[in-house]
Amino acid sequence: MLRGGPSYTGGVNRGPFLADVAVVGAGPVGAAIAWRCAQRGLRVVVHDPAPGSGASRVAAGMLAPVAEAYFGEHELTGLLTASAARWPGFAAELAEAAGMPFGHRTEGTLVVGLTADDLAEARRLWSYQQELGLPITMLRPSQLRDREPALAPRVRGGAVAPGDHQVDPRRLVTALRTAAERAGARWSPAAVGALGEVDARVTVVAAGCGAAALTGLPVRPVKGQVLRLRAPGRAAPGFRHVIRGYADGEPVYLVPRTDGEVVVGATVEERADTEVTAGAVLRLLRAAVDLVPELAEYDLVEAAAGLRPGTPDNAPILGPLPGRPGVLAATGHHRHGIVLTPLTADLITQLVVTGVADPLLAPFAPDRFTAGPRTQEKTWN
Amino acid sequence: MLRGGPSYTGGVNRGPFLADVAVVGAGPVGAAIAWRCAQRGLRVVVHDPAPGSGASRVAAGMLAPVAEAYFGEHELTGLLTASAARWPGFAAELAEAAGMPFGHRTEGTLVVGLTADDLAEARRLWSYQQELGLPITMLRPSQLRDREPALAPRVRGGAVAPGDHQVDPRRLVTALRTAAERAGARWSPAAVGALGEVDARVTVVAAGCGAAALTGLPVRPVKGQVLRLRAPGRAAPGFRHVIRGYADGEPVYLVPRTDGEVVVGATVEERADTEVTAGAVLRLLRAAVDLVPELAEYDLVEAAAGLRPGTPDNAPILGPLPGRPGVLAATGHHRHGIVLTPLTADLITQLVVTGVADPLLAPFAPDRFTAGPRTQEKTWN
Repeated sequence: MLRGGPSYTGGVNRGPFLADVAVVGAGPVGAAIAWRCAQRGLRVVVHDPAPGSGASRVAAGMLAPVAEAYFGEHELTGLLTASAARWPGFAAELAEAAGMPFGHRTEGTLVVGLTADDLAEARRLWSYQQELGLPITMLRPSQLRDREPALAPRVRGGAVAPGDHQVDPRRLVTALRTAAERAGARWSPAAVGALGEVDARVTVVAAGCGAAALTGLPVRPVKGQVLRLRAPGRAAPGFRHVIRGYADGEPVYLVPRTDGEVVVGATVEERADTEVTAGAVLRLLRAAVDLVPELAEYDLVEAAAGLRPGTPDNAPILGPLPGRPGVLAATGHHRHGIVLTPLTADLITQLVVTGVADPLLAPFAPDRFTAGPRTQEKTWN
Repeated sequence: MLRGGPSYTGGVNRGPFLADVAVVGAGPVGAAIAWRCAQRGLRVVVHDPAPGSGASRVAAGMLAPVAEAYFGEHELTGLLTASAARWPGFAAELAEAAGMPFGHRTEGTLVVGLTADDLAEARRLWSYQQELGLPITMLRPSQLRDREPALAPRVRGGAVAPGDHQVDPRRLVTALRTAAERAGARWSPAAVGALGEVDARVTVVAAGCGAAALTGLPVRPVKGQVLRLRAPGRAAPGFRHVIRGYADGEPVYLVPRTDGEVVVGATVEERADTEVTAGAVLRLLRAAVDLVPELAEYDLVEAAAGLRPGTPDNAPILGPLPGRPGVLAATGHHRHGIVLTPLTADLITQLVVTGVADPLLAPFAPDRFTAGPRTQEKTWN
């Protein structure tokens, strides 16, 4: 319906719809799309009975395109890198628009290996990341400890990814909601049981795991268990970098917040319950304390499990839903929802406004999971 | 005031007091005293703004006079044994009076050692317990596994204390409150700031750690961190005995409930905060999973810290408060409040009713901490 037609901002006939854009799901992705669309003058309604209660509630908030660059995920790595590059500007604009900080920290990430085996495995990945031209630099143990004296003496080696930053996802959702509301977006607390209930010219499904039931897309819940510690006496944690590492084969990350919180995560489990298990907490705590011993004296203030929206190729699903005119998907962000928020919001908003899909979106189109030849269209319905 | 006089049940002049007995503190000890006194026809008021919110909320509820018999605590061991002997009758009477169960289980306790070092240390204690004539029998590893196949193959050896039972302290407090109320005791939700506020002929201070401020007795908080796990799918845990053990030097106990809960405890820390720390949770989970591997798959449903009322000699404080006519102490039960509940309630009630202290109370009199020669009086004030 937008193909070749005027953009929404160009005096389009708004028709009988209650809204120009309905966003289903108010996690970071949905709230950011709502903000961006509202900034463009569109009438936006966000549907979510419990904003920020999905994967982002549990997420650590690492903006880590480098440390997350894995073998065989070249296209995803490109998307992560492109979105991470937008984060500084996005963060500055959002802080201004919302009038509140959300824990954006730019000290960078240390990736470490506890044992010689851990280090050997990590080095292979760092070499791959360097071959891609990504900014990661191996450090001698003394350089590692100069940067973070809190690291255990046992840690055998590491690398620094200076551009891998962090943000606090819970505060991010609050800031995005505020910015979206200030830009004119409205909130509907009613749960959406089917897309037919939504009264809008364009519906954006940003419902995380809930997208599967709404759209039939192959989004599956991938359980993650995460701990939140707090430095005693509400002091700042004894380290400033995000620390990712392998500890006796156990992958773990430690994300320090300025308010004293340290997020310790995360399991990746192919199951859909949200129980916290003794074994997962044990493994996370053991790995965390092995890497940064002072964490043993931190308070354990929360143990939680969330469900990431996983997809068959670990990449998000972004673009027009086949056979459903007026419906866009922005889901399946799996472990990368926070870092992908700015780019997802920009590209989906551009698609809503202009009707033209950015070439960046092509590898992530919803129709890649359907049978038959891929569509080469750059515009939608 | 009771010396030589008539007992409360023998037509005593009740005077102007609002109550015959005020019990300050409605943990298991206080609630049981209230029940017993109300059974004797006394007018009882129990003061507690939050019944059962003290040490008993966190306690595991082991009735373990044998496994808790330590070197140098001979008199305490005698008291534990005497009280444990009253538990079967007390439990039956309470279940009848309250009309509800409270998790009294009599499968007994296995005490195990994970490593050869753990076992050597445990064996020395078991020999001491056997020398005292206490019922504990060493088992071969095959016998241990016949009794509890869930034990890790690594466990080197163990012993069985068939008379060391368990009860669920939270349900126990509920049952005791119900029984006491049915017997006529009344509840006052106002916090007692000073004993002068209490309007009763006899005041029993059963306030746990709160006894220090009310009485000046040397009761100090001893922090204990405890976990509660739950078997998946609400099944019963895969073991029936209480399992106590040493795992690489770490003491731990595992208390299985029929509803699927397993209590894992406990740290013993000389501090007064109630924060849950990462290091304590790590140590408890590691020891628990080392002894019973299937616990790794259990849900972790609660991590909490409580404060035990400790005393200088680890023994409770039971009897007349020096220089405070009409005030009895029933506090300082430290790690033994649940097992000591029946005997404490019986002896304190007898003291209230007859004015005569049972000889069993002599080693635990409050005046043992004051300077000067110990009083030999068997009656009080």
